[in-house]
Amino acid sequence: MTKPAFFAPDFARAPFAGAPEATFAPLPADGVLPEGFFSTSNLPTYVRVGGRWLTPDRPRMDCVIVKRPDGGLETIEPRRLARGELVAMGEAEDGTGGIVVYGEGFLGGGHSANEFRFMSTEVSRERPVNYEELAARLNEEKAQGGYLIWVAGPALVHSRARGDFEWFIRNGYVQAVLAGNAVAVHDIEAAIFGTTLGMTNTGQPTDGGHGLHMRAINQVRALGSIENAVKAGLIKSGIMHALVTNKVPYVLAGSIRDDGPLPGVYSNSLEAQDAMRELTVLATGAILVASALHAIAVGNMLPAYHTNYGGAPTPLMTICVDQTEFVVNKLKDRGTHQAYGVVTNAQDFMHVLRFYVERSSNA
Amino acid sequence: MTKPAFFAPDFARAPFAGAPEATFAPLPADGVLPEGFFSTSNLPTYVRVGGRWLTPDRPRMDCVIVKRPDGGLETIEPRRLARGELVAMGEAEDGTGGIVVYGEGFLGGGHSANEFRFMSTEVSRERPVNYEELAARLNEEKAQGGYLIWVAGPALVHSRARGDFEWFIRNGYVQAVLAGNAVAVHDIEAAIFGTTLGMTNTGQPTDGGHGLHMRAINQVRALGSIENAVKAGLIKSGIMHALVTNKVPYVLAGSIRDDGPLPGVYSNSLEAQDAMRELTVLATGAILVASALHAIAVGNMLPAYHTNYGGAPTPLMTICVDQTEFVVNKLKDRGTHQAYGVVTNAQDFMHVLRFYVERSSNA
Amino acid sequence: MTKPAFFAPDFARAPFAGAPEATFAPLPADGVLPEGFFSTSNLPTYVRVGGRWLTPDRPRMDCVIVKRPDGGLETIEPRRLARGELVAMGEAEDGTGGIVVYGEGFLGGGHSANEFRFMSTEVSRERPVNYEELAARLNEEKAQGGYLIWVAGPALVHSRARGDFEWFIRNGYVQAVLAGNAVAVHDIEAAIFGTTLGMTNTGQPTDGGHGLHMRAINQVRALGSIENAVKAGLIKSGIMHALVTNKVPYVLAGSIRDDGPLPGVYSNSLEAQDAMRELTVLATGAILVASALHAIAVGNMLPAYHTNYGGAPTPLMTICVDQTEFVVNKLKDRGTHQAYGVVTNAQDFMHVLRFYVERSSNA
Amino acid sequence: MTKPAFFAPDFARAPFAGAPEATFAPLPADGVLPEGFFSTSNLPTYVRVGGRWLTPDRPRMDCVIVKRPDGGLETIEPRRLARGELVAMGEAEDGTGGIVVYGEGFLGGGHSANEFRFMSTEVSRERPVNYEELAARLNEEKAQGGYLIWVAGPALVHSRARGDFEWFIRNGYVQAVLAGNAVAVHDIEAAIFGTTLGMTNTGQPTDGGHGLHMRAINQVRALGSIENAVKAGLIKSGIMHALVTNKVPYVLAGSIRDDGPLPGVYSNSLEAQDAMRELTVLATGAILVASALHAIAVGNMLPAYHTNYGGAPTPLMTICVDQTEFVVNKLKDRGTHQAYGVVTNAQDFMHVLRFYVERSSNA
Repeated sequence: MTKPAFFAPDFARAPFAGAPEATFAPLPADGVLPEGFFSTSNLPTYVRVGGRWLTPDRPRMDCVIVKRPDGGLETIEPRRLARGELVAMGEAEDGTGGIVVYGEGFLGGGHSANEFRFMSTEVSRERPVNYEELAARLNEEKAQGGYLIWVAGPALVHSRARGDFEWFIRNGYVQAVLAGNAVAVHDIEAAIFGTTLGMTNTGQPTDGGHGLHMRAINQVRALGSIENAVKAGLIKSGIMHALVTNKVPYVLAGSIRDDGPLPGVYSNSLEAQDAMRELTVLATGAILVASALHAIAVGNMLPAYHTNYGGAPTPLMTICVDQTEFVVNKLKDRGTHQAYGVVTNAQDFMHVLRFYVERSSNA
Repeated sequence: MTKPAFFAPDFARAPFAGAPEATFAPLPADGVLPEGFFSTSNLPTYVRVGGRWLTPDRPRMDCVIVKRPDGGLETIEPRRLARGELVAMGEAEDGTGGIVVYGEGFLGGGHSANEFRFMSTEVSRERPVNYEELAARLNEEKAQGGYLIWVAGPALVHSRARGDFEWFIRNGYVQAVLAGNAVAVHDIEAAIFGTTLGMTNTGQPTDGGHGLHMRAINQVRALGSIENAVKAGLIKSGIMHALVTNKVPYVLAGSIRDDGPLPGVYSNSLEAQDAMRELTVLATGAILVASALHAIAVGNMLPAYHTNYGGAPTPLMTICVDQTEFVVNKLKDRGTHQAYGVVTNAQDFMHVLRFYVERSSNA
Repeated sequence: MTKPAFFAPDFARAPFAGAPEATFAPLPADGVLPEGFFSTSNLPTYVRVGGRWLTPDRPRMDCVIVKRPDGGLETIEPRRLARGELVAMGEAEDGTGGIVVYGEGFLGGGHSANEFRFMSTEVSRERPVNYEELAARLNEEKAQGGYLIWVAGPALVHSRARGDFEWFIRNGYVQAVLAGNAVAVHDIEAAIFGTTLGMTNTGQPTDGGHGLHMRAINQVRALGSIENAVKAGLIKSGIMHALVTNKVPYVLAGSIRDDGPLPGVYSNSLEAQDAMRELTVLATGAILVASALHAIAVGNMLPAYHTNYGGAPTPLMTICVDQTEFVVNKLKDRGTHQAYGVVTNAQDFMHVLRFYVERSSNA
Repeated sequence: MTKPAFFAPDFARAPFAGAPEATFAPLPADGVLPEGFFSTSNLPTYVRVGGRWLTPDRPRMDCVIVKRPDGGLETIEPRRLARGELVAMGEAEDGTGGIVVYGEGFLGGGHSANEFRFMSTEVSRERPVNYEELAARLNEEKAQGGYLIWVAGPALVHSRARGDFEWFIRNGYVQAVLAGNAVAVHDIEAAIFGTTLGMTNTGQPTDGGHGLHMRAINQVRALGSIENAVKAGLIKSGIMHALVTNKVPYVLAGSIRDDGPLPGVYSNSLEAQDAMRELTVLATGAILVASALHAIAVGNMLPAYHTNYGGAPTPLMTICVDQTEFVVNKLKDRGTHQAYGVVTNAQDFMHVLRFYVERSSNA
């Protein structure tokens, strides 16, 4: 909310000095502009007319500049103009066409001409996600022998992305998984009872369902470890099954929300950090899905680069997937500025990514 | 998304049995109702006239019930009535005033034992989306000759779901589209320039991009209509191209955010409402994607049921897709309680739904 | 926020009348339950033992009911039980297995006529927050000698609500605080350097600011404890200062996101849970602000009622404040159905609540 | 997701050339650092040791750099170090202390040294809102004869901020209001019936409440205008009453969501735009609260500056208040880059702002 300092333009210098006269052309029909019209922004705009720099009245964006019969310039909606009226022409905003859009003091430091733009927020649900590129990057990492760390929150399991995650594990796209007790608990409840927190995979509650995760935990505790539960056939599918049978290392970090916990969970946070760090130092990429706590914890540990490919520091691919921009921005605000944000549902992300990865690896 | 069981009313019992005739009173002036008028909801409504229970035509909420000279009953916006026309009176919905609002099977039931449970919030990013069922419902509607109305917001176009929407249109899953000027503008900018608001489909800004939507609008205005722009080859792909070439009716409703507007946009909101309503009365289903304004406007017009399949009121499939729970809950809070919420990104929703619909229709 | 009416159980009727004795079975191993154990909820629970209906001590969800050698019943985490200890058995909550979960008055009632309505979503930014009532409830608790537990997330400190929280502590509205390492770190960084994560309290970044929290932690570690740092004059203001000088108990639970940690933080999650639980069993109310992890962890431990005022179960005031509906609904989805949601910014909530509490306590 | 180009450091140039040796100091106690330690970031870091630039192993942020007995450097958590171990010292990241943090290619263009920081996202619920400054700016505008345009969405009325808005109008802080039909409808329903959409101001639904807004609209329609309804005593309080009695100009723009509409609402969007623009051209400031549609529409019309104070372009204060970052960022993405975002609830914003404005104007 600090008032930005505004520097009045210096007409003796670039981009003003030496600029030509602006050009104007007539509307071919009512409300229809001549091709090549100048489209306004909301920044101070100077138009060269008769050797002087004029500022059009009533400035606003997404309009045109009409020259009135008396020589006055006005910013106006195209629909309000009639055939034959004269509007300023050109796309250049740097004076080369006789028009200067002056952003100095309005757009922050280090900006240049033609800086007014839409859709510049980096993390937004409204930006397209380039799944082709994400898939290509994953296949590239796999081909190069990269080390991809996946971080997952429990929503991934609730939302039926469990099968897709399993696919990524079994197909060599997952070198390590960092998650919490809850991810394993929901995954194992799903393996044993077909529910997560008592909700079926079509989203229906079940009678007595609120106790099912406690029963799942108890059965694993009775067997002594997740590995034993896989061996004993209690756990026949899912994320933990895939990790154990594919010998992919994982760390389950404990938290104060944990029920149980499952055997193997690090209840001591510092021991969990140490175990996680032994994996993060190997990373050439990280994919953080639907967890604020674990994503930020891992982000804290990850360098913004790695030196595994040839020695020179190369940016460490960091993808953060969350339902809202907030978690991605929070991750960046905690220093993981390199994160590429995908704002979507975990279930759909995993599904679409898998689809593209399959297609790209078959191609 | 389970179809709620609907129990047809039993006229031999309360609240029907013994109810008096409904009363009607004339409008004191054009568009001004008599005090004490009956205000409609979107639930099945029965009006006692001449000893019979009649169901007014064209049901929707926030309207009144007019008795036509021929005795027919119609649900209608007050602004469309003239002095002297007769509207149903009373506030009671339980039959005591001759009108029954019948919610059975539409509003869910009461509580019972074993009610403590987790995951009972209806609309949540953490609930699985049952795409198999959604796809089955769409194919079912197509097979039955249903009438599916799609409502779309601009994020659908930004986020590269344009191609998937086109696919649904060309394959007969879209009987009408209700949207705003911006959806058509972005779609046409993409068709002509490959950008939306100057952003490429991989999310990169382009130089001078902020003017591209104005140039797209202008080129269509020069040709006189979107239809002409399709015929002239200016628009060769996308949503509007698919709608025009497949003769699918659409309404583009204007708003104060509009640039242009494009030819064919209803700048008058009331005329837009009237045009939209001629389509909503035909609906057997509605899919509302990434628009709060348009989703709520259409939700207001939609009854919670339709009578197209055999006559008995059957719930009208209403799917609302948004990035956050808020818009879905707001829609419900404005009375469209029947909405099934899908909390995800428009791009991913369209992509995954298409995948399942293709698979299910091939099966 | 209206206090729901609670109806005391009538033991002469169903589901109590005629119920059999509850059954108990021994643990087969330390921390491993017998199959078929009874899994608790947060609702009033009655267990038939020796012809009487007993209510287990220390109620909470996701636990079991142990029968102590003296016949007393206690709700307890399975991990705290040893081989041979006896736990209540069965899944039925309706008395048929000798256990009744009594939800009457806690889960709301069924539907009736005239049910079509707007604005029925319980948790919404669009609902007014009745601060007068919240303030009255706080003052009422204070007057009755209640025990209010506050849970806070780091956003509370970032957003300048630190001073208001301090005020609540110093004025007797806070009987215990449950938070994480980060809350204390930010608070102490603010006390020493006037920043949180290097951001000033007007939101400006500072040069070298990214290291300030590390320097704050280090200075406290050098002194050995937060208490010492207060005594030594290093910490002269803020939340931790108020807690220490007012002798209000607190638990700082560690997590994998922690830097440091500060001395006194429980790095072991299970020890943290145990310490937290010793405070939650005293609670007559809970105020959960801007933390998903800690709010849900505490919600898991809290019964939906307490018996401190006269013995009959009375609803435990549970207020959950978050920027989005999601966290409140997630808390409810994890079983804390009694939570009253306030959807707003932590800074503003604390400020407005303080204003109303001051006004109401002066009146 | 484009791979940023990384430029390998040129050790022959600044900030490398001529840099001194890095210094190291011993830990005074186990896990306690010497004051003045170097705190790491996640960017490539070069340390001058023995005339060479070394890169510490295992890089990550929020750690220190230990010099191992063999001369090797490692990035490590302070808690893992013992008394006497040597860590790198200094706060400078530009080589002047023998350490260079090299951000080139990692932080985007135009960056300088010491650029790694936390909390740099501009719009975030976690940033403090400087209400003192907002209040000062409002009072300054009032003193200078500024022209403040307020834009409001219906949530402002639902959430009991109605009284606070009324206060701002009556006290000269509001020169024009731009809103929609719904704001006026809710405000008038509140004036007549004490509800909004049938919900009381404590958030309770009322029986038959769903028709109350229709009855409110009808009563105003019967009187012909909002002004008449104020004169006739139908509307005795609230926003519309304050606007009419204080002769503050307003535009109510219609939309397809409108019931009614109220007399005076511009149902034609283009006429609404024209009416709005006659007010926006006068603006020296704009406060946009809880409306995406109207905020973006007005943002489109507003220049980023005005020339009312002395002629030179001066930034036009633009405050956008919304529950989520999304709407503020969307407004910026539509070109209103100058918007200052306040992420909070409309009710609380109005309340706190009023409190500060009152205090600041009394001072």
